[in-house]
Amino acid sequence: MSMDLPVAEVRAIVERALAEDIAWGDMTSNTLIPSDSRAVGRVLAKSVGVLAGIEVLVLAFQSVDLSVQVEIRVPDGSPFQEGDVLARVEGPARSLLSAERTALNLVQRMTGIASATASYVEAVQGLPARIVDTRKTAPGLRILDKYAVRMGGGHNHRYNLADGILIKDNHLEMLAALGYSLKDVLERAHAQAPHMIKIEIEVDTLEQCREAVEAGADLILLDNMSVEQMREAVQFIGGRALTEASGGVGLETVRAIAETGVDLISVGKLTHSVQAADISLDFEGTGGNP
Amino acid sequence: MSMDLPVAEVRAIVERALAEDIAWGDMTSNTLIPSDSRAVGRVLAKSVGVLAGIEVLVLAFQSVDLSVQVEIRVPDGSPFQEGDVLARVEGPARSLLSAERTALNLVQRMTGIASATASYVEAVQGLPARIVDTRKTAPGLRILDKYAVRMGGGHNHRYNLADGILIKDNHLEMLAALGYSLKDVLERAHAQAPHMIKIEIEVDTLEQCREAVEAGADLILLDNMSVEQMREAVQFIGGRALTEASGGVGLETVRAIAETGVDLISVGKLTHSVQAADISLDFEGTGGNP
Amino acid sequence: MSMDLPVAEVRAIVERALAEDIAWGDMTSNTLIPSDSRAVGRVLAKSVGVLAGIEVLVLAFQSVDLSVQVEIRVPDGSPFQEGDVLARVEGPARSLLSAERTALNLVQRMTGIASATASYVEAVQGLPARIVDTRKTAPGLRILDKYAVRMGGGHNHRYNLADGILIKDNHLEMLAALGYSLKDVLERAHAQAPHMIKIEIEVDTLEQCREAVEAGADLILLDNMSVEQMREAVQFIGGRALTEASGGVGLETVRAIAETGVDLISVGKLTHSVQAADISLDFEGTGGNP
Amino acid sequence: MSMDLPVAEVRAIVERALAEDIAWGDMTSNTLIPSDSRAVGRVLAKSVGVLAGIEVLVLAFQSVDLSVQVEIRVPDGSPFQEGDVLARVEGPARSLLSAERTALNLVQRMTGIASATASYVEAVQGLPARIVDTRKTAPGLRILDKYAVRMGGGHNHRYNLADGILIKDNHLEMLAALGYSLKDVLERAHAQAPHMIKIEIEVDTLEQCREAVEAGADLILLDNMSVEQMREAVQFIGGRALTEASGGVGLETVRAIAETGVDLISVGKLTHSVQAADISLDFEGTGGNP
Amino acid sequence: MSMDLPVAEVRAIVERALAEDIAWGDMTSNTLIPSDSRAVGRVLAKSVGVLAGIEVLVLAFQSVDLSVQVEIRVPDGSPFQEGDVLARVEGPARSLLSAERTALNLVQRMTGIASATASYVEAVQGLPARIVDTRKTAPGLRILDKYAVRMGGGHNHRYNLADGILIKDNHLEMLAALGYSLKDVLERAHAQAPHMIKIEIEVDTLEQCREAVEAGADLILLDNMSVEQMREAVQFIGGRALTEASGGVGLETVRAIAETGVDLISVGKLTHSVQAADISLDFEGTGGNP
Amino acid sequence: MSMDLPVAEVRAIVERALAEDIAWGDMTSNTLIPSDSRAVGRVLAKSVGVLAGIEVLVLAFQSVDLSVQVEIRVPDGSPFQEGDVLARVEGPARSLLSAERTALNLVQRMTGIASATASYVEAVQGLPARIVDTRKTAPGLRILDKYAVRMGGGHNHRYNLADGILIKDNHLEMLAALGYSLKDVLERAHAQAPHMIKIEIEVDTLEQCREAVEAGADLILLDNMSVEQMREAVQFIGGRALTEASGGVGLETVRAIAETGVDLISVGKLTHSVQAADISLDFEGTGGNP
Repeated sequence: MSMDLPVAEVRAIVERALAEDIAWGDMTSNTLIPSDSRAVGRVLAKSVGVLAGIEVLVLAFQSVDLSVQVEIRVPDGSPFQEGDVLARVEGPARSLLSAERTALNLVQRMTGIASATASYVEAVQGLPARIVDTRKTAPGLRILDKYAVRMGGGHNHRYNLADGILIKDNHLEMLAALGYSLKDVLERAHAQAPHMIKIEIEVDTLEQCREAVEAGADLILLDNMSVEQMREAVQFIGGRALTEASGGVGLETVRAIAETGVDLISVGKLTHSVQAADISLDFEGTGGNP
Repeated sequence: MSMDLPVAEVRAIVERALAEDIAWGDMTSNTLIPSDSRAVGRVLAKSVGVLAGIEVLVLAFQSVDLSVQVEIRVPDGSPFQEGDVLARVEGPARSLLSAERTALNLVQRMTGIASATASYVEAVQGLPARIVDTRKTAPGLRILDKYAVRMGGGHNHRYNLADGILIKDNHLEMLAALGYSLKDVLERAHAQAPHMIKIEIEVDTLEQCREAVEAGADLILLDNMSVEQMREAVQFIGGRALTEASGGVGLETVRAIAETGVDLISVGKLTHSVQAADISLDFEGTGGNP
Repeated sequence: MSMDLPVAEVRAIVERALAEDIAWGDMTSNTLIPSDSRAVGRVLAKSVGVLAGIEVLVLAFQSVDLSVQVEIRVPDGSPFQEGDVLARVEGPARSLLSAERTALNLVQRMTGIASATASYVEAVQGLPARIVDTRKTAPGLRILDKYAVRMGGGHNHRYNLADGILIKDNHLEMLAALGYSLKDVLERAHAQAPHMIKIEIEVDTLEQCREAVEAGADLILLDNMSVEQMREAVQFIGGRALTEASGGVGLETVRAIAETGVDLISVGKLTHSVQAADISLDFEGTGGNP
Repeated sequence: MSMDLPVAEVRAIVERALAEDIAWGDMTSNTLIPSDSRAVGRVLAKSVGVLAGIEVLVLAFQSVDLSVQVEIRVPDGSPFQEGDVLARVEGPARSLLSAERTALNLVQRMTGIASATASYVEAVQGLPARIVDTRKTAPGLRILDKYAVRMGGGHNHRYNLADGILIKDNHLEMLAALGYSLKDVLERAHAQAPHMIKIEIEVDTLEQCREAVEAGADLILLDNMSVEQMREAVQFIGGRALTEASGGVGLETVRAIAETGVDLISVGKLTHSVQAADISLDFEGTGGNP
Repeated sequence: MSMDLPVAEVRAIVERALAEDIAWGDMTSNTLIPSDSRAVGRVLAKSVGVLAGIEVLVLAFQSVDLSVQVEIRVPDGSPFQEGDVLARVEGPARSLLSAERTALNLVQRMTGIASATASYVEAVQGLPARIVDTRKTAPGLRILDKYAVRMGGGHNHRYNLADGILIKDNHLEMLAALGYSLKDVLERAHAQAPHMIKIEIEVDTLEQCREAVEAGADLILLDNMSVEQMREAVQFIGGRALTEASGGVGLETVRAIAETGVDLISVGKLTHSVQAADISLDFEGTGGNP
Repeated sequence: MSMDLPVAEVRAIVERALAEDIAWGDMTSNTLIPSDSRAVGRVLAKSVGVLAGIEVLVLAFQSVDLSVQVEIRVPDGSPFQEGDVLARVEGPARSLLSAERTALNLVQRMTGIASATASYVEAVQGLPARIVDTRKTAPGLRILDKYAVRMGGGHNHRYNLADGILIKDNHLEMLAALGYSLKDVLERAHAQAPHMIKIEIEVDTLEQCREAVEAGADLILLDNMSVEQMREAVQFIGGRALTEASGGVGLETVRAIAETGVDLISVGKLTHSVQAADISLDFEGTGGNP
């Protein structure tokens, strides 16, 4: 797999999905389709978008049957138009039919994520803000979801709770109740955290911004602030820490947010509310343009 | 677990999700929150909906820490209002914080599915049509996705390729090329299929309907037909087989489709394009109404 | 694998079996046989039967060593005679010796099942009754056991508790105690069950038959009835539902049962009391006919 | 688990069996039985035998639902009579119904093995020969199969290829072709084998016996010899090595074999051709004696 | 588990270790020790050290038998003296004996790592340098190895290849061959890397130091430099980036290295060449002081 | 894999190690190294030793990327000198870089064990004593640790608690408290233990030796005896049982112990306190001699 994904993990996801869908056998195909029938199919785009997961689709077909040949016509990360043939598959008809749904479920979700991400990235074009994802991914599919965000031109936030420190208001309130100031908290974080991990802190006010910057936060999360507040915070911080906007970001508001000068805009819905891309597998001679 | 879900399978999903999110430790909580701090949180609805997954949420918290206590306030399958407390969790603060995202990711997706399903079910109220799901589920999460459909008042179509025969146009075209008529196909299916499995066939025309009914199809899938065509087909079939409408069904069209008299309306987007429900975990004393 | 089996599941079974048998190494072969010795073996039938599992045997050898070549001489589902060479294996001697027992254990059990099934199928030849299996399979080996039944000419009953509804007397008595009549029970089943799943009900009397047929049961299980009772029940039902005979069916009684006109005869002992087929691996030059 | 079985391994077997049988849910029970119904069942012997697997049955019920209570009435290794209540189970009706088949499949197979073993053990009563098993077990179930043999009064031969050296005629012929004498082979085995592992060798003739004994074999396998030949071989060996009889041993021949003075008699059919014990789960009030 | 370790991961490691050691049963204990014998044991230090893994030891005993009681006398991270009782275990004798070796293997390795780390930490006492680990851990045991380093007072470097960017000379040479300067490389890293991940670069010369600092490296790795070179580099960098010393660090040289002012000193041998701590399990009445 | 290791088990270890180290991707390589760059590396010995694990290293590279070519220059079990090229790897640069650490961690540990074993074997050269390992291996890595001991010229003791009976003083004291003499204990062991498993017993005194020999122990463990005591015990036993020396064996004492005539000397530190071998991967053109 040439894509930047850990092969073994992806294979495990694909095999679980196939086991879930094929179970003890594709009754329809096994009952009706002769075991020596061969077929050719085209993976066809039914709408515009940005592709992600085409190699995962290959893996799905070849996990069912190593003899299936897949020719990729559009690489991951590329925009495509309605009617584009994204890949061509050829092999035993039963194998193609049995893998079809799983392969499509994977590529449709991933392409849905990439396409939505691309819309946000396009909306902030020309501005320095990165569109980043969150940990609000489908349970068990995080590596695919976050890969799809990258394919759409976005960047990845923390992968998990272990590879970054993000001090949220929940933490701050609990710690305040124990007598710790924001500055205390950041000092403890610096003293104890692994040195390769950056420290981000959520703030509500300019005053908190000041404390956070002076205590050496690497990133400052401006959560649910108005565009006006954000702009003020960004100017105040003045590059001493990275800034991230978060909370209720939509396609209609993202550019205004980016114009405040924030470095990062995190968008939960990229992965928690995915619109599956419309991609189908058409068997040759059964419709669709060649 | 009192819900109609296989415990071991759900546990495996939850544990994979936790492993994915916690990895080698919640650096923020472990670094900052004293190990003996305790906390109380409320699982809070931020919008209306129909709940699904509250026991999966319990499992997520208790998989991290068996000592976490969860009191369920709203059972799965119930409608809730914005501001409703769905459950109350209490336990070691670190455990609650570490499990939070995984627990919410699960219940937000499941409740999103249940709520959407409930909208479709409500739209066809008073008519006999069942709203049913498809195999277009998130890879690895099918048992949760399909359970959520049931909680929303929908019904489940095939679970996988093994527990039902659904002869699609792809199959029919391949078989036609081999010289089999629709009648031949259904005869072979009856002769070879396990007797507990029903046989459904996709048709395009009234003529195919006739052939399918006469050859003893248990269900007839009317795919991408106009409402007018469907009505005609349903009348023609006259109860000799169950009928299913499929293809591009939306909230705005579902009632008209149901009024044709079809028995089943399958809606792919219930599970392939989920809008996550807005549910949060608020720690007591940290906001939200009591 | 061309056989109608889910590859990944079968591979998992084979790998578990190999891990169980080889553990941390075949001490005998590794200690004594030079690592570059090669050998040729013949999988030899020591009695008559119907073959099942020859591709599983291939998988067992090739899971130990991908370089082992296997030439299948008799395909699954075929009858064979004593002395027939079912397959020929060639490869590193250590690999053949290490995989031998696991490969044979698999094919001996599966062929035992297929052969017993074939005897039952032959006993009812000319009559319409299908010989079907049950869920009384060896734990963890159901897909192999049920595949072997098919290879013997039998058909599969439910795969598991999820893909069919079979209302037994235990259910009926519990439900009767709660005030539900047989008719109520079938109505609830129809109202709530997934539409792709058939509903079967166990009956003891003609009166129950009548209720069951009128309430729309798809199948009626005649459990432990005398041949006389069965005949009467079948005539009464008159094709309005499928009929299944069950309970203490043996080779000596199966034809009389089939002559009652039942559609299905389920035989638990096909899989719960398997007589392993006598199949051996003979190395060339070490005995057996060529 | 008080039995001499590795808990984690047994749990894995039970969970795989449950996953296989329950899949995505017990449709019958979930559809019909109220979730708060409770039931009491008796695990009932329908014939005589020797019990094995009663704690595995407990594990099966409790893996489905930890709240199920099981009272064991007969411990593993004990003989039982037709009509004996082996255990009493109590808990949510759905849980009992869902676990029933898996629990019974396990205990029926294990008790079948124990009972057959006990027959062989009884047949050689008063003679020193041990009845031992082979590696001809159901793939994936070896620890249960071999435990059941012990419960029936038998002993275990090698668990796998790693914990003993058994030089068969296949090995000897291959090694003879390479120029090694039987004595060379045993010398190499002694020189290289781990010192905790015993060395057994298969012989055909008295001459081979002599060579094997002199070369220090720990055990000598007398394969497919006549009773007369065996007696002669045992006398010749005279206690210098343990002797094992193998090949086509049946209940009718085992005592004559034991009378030759062999130390061990291995019986493949104990585990490769199991006759499942007739054990059922009767719900109270639904028949059977109290 | 109160320790900062992901429970499910640790449990998986412990269960694999137990499966490896107990396999199909502890033959010695099962054969000789009555199943109802109980015993009390003390986990006893045979030398000085710093403890790590005591809760993993608890998990090992309780994975074999949930009824084993363990009283922890010394918590992880504490120094202990020869003769100290670290914990007291009580339960069925067979369970204690069967779990003993696995429990000790785990705690001996972890305590060996913690104790060695503590020696390094002590050697640099009073200086700001952190002792950090590397990815040179025992395959499959990284979470335990790195936890043990923390218990010894050390800190963790990257957990894996995904949670930090460390540009080594191999990367630089490959990239130089492609025409990229060190500055280009750091620019690309900043442009593409996830924003939560820090960027470290290995340098050989002061000139490289200058380039790296100016290009915004977060950390600078001074690999295999002399103490003199390191001191010069640290002074040159002047706090603009963190500095890490690496390569052939030993107990005798670590203080001199720390005195150069580096922020971090990474020590591969903490985890790749572990000296197991001398800890035993003594059964009461069988020796050792009370 | 031509080595005497169970392929599937080794593959599982390697894949766990890779998952642990690569996690969701090698950020450094994926960010910086072009996906089509290729590289050639040499696995280089930095000190003398005896090699073990070179095929495991191959597996590590090829598990990341099947297209990586590895040419083995030195086979397992061979001595090597500082500067020797042990293997040559060639393939996509990213793949080589991502697999490097895991591959080295494996081969460094295994070669460290083989090299240490070889030192002990050399120290007893000319004497009959075997150097054997113990069960004090790294949890989860036993098959690799014990294989490495063999590659160093050592032999393996018990693999686990199931494949040998070793009655230690803990067992004897517990059993003495229950009224069993040493002779009783050995009699019970012989009566109940599987016949392929040898019985070893730990003794402290000559008197115990006598009892053990007369009761038919296969091996006698002389634990923590002085060299003088051992010599006396060995002479007393006079070949009636194998003898094993154990406890605090070091390179400086091993020859004196061997000269007592013991058959086996077990050395815990071979596997519990491994000194990793110094082996590196040098990319061509990046240093090292050709």
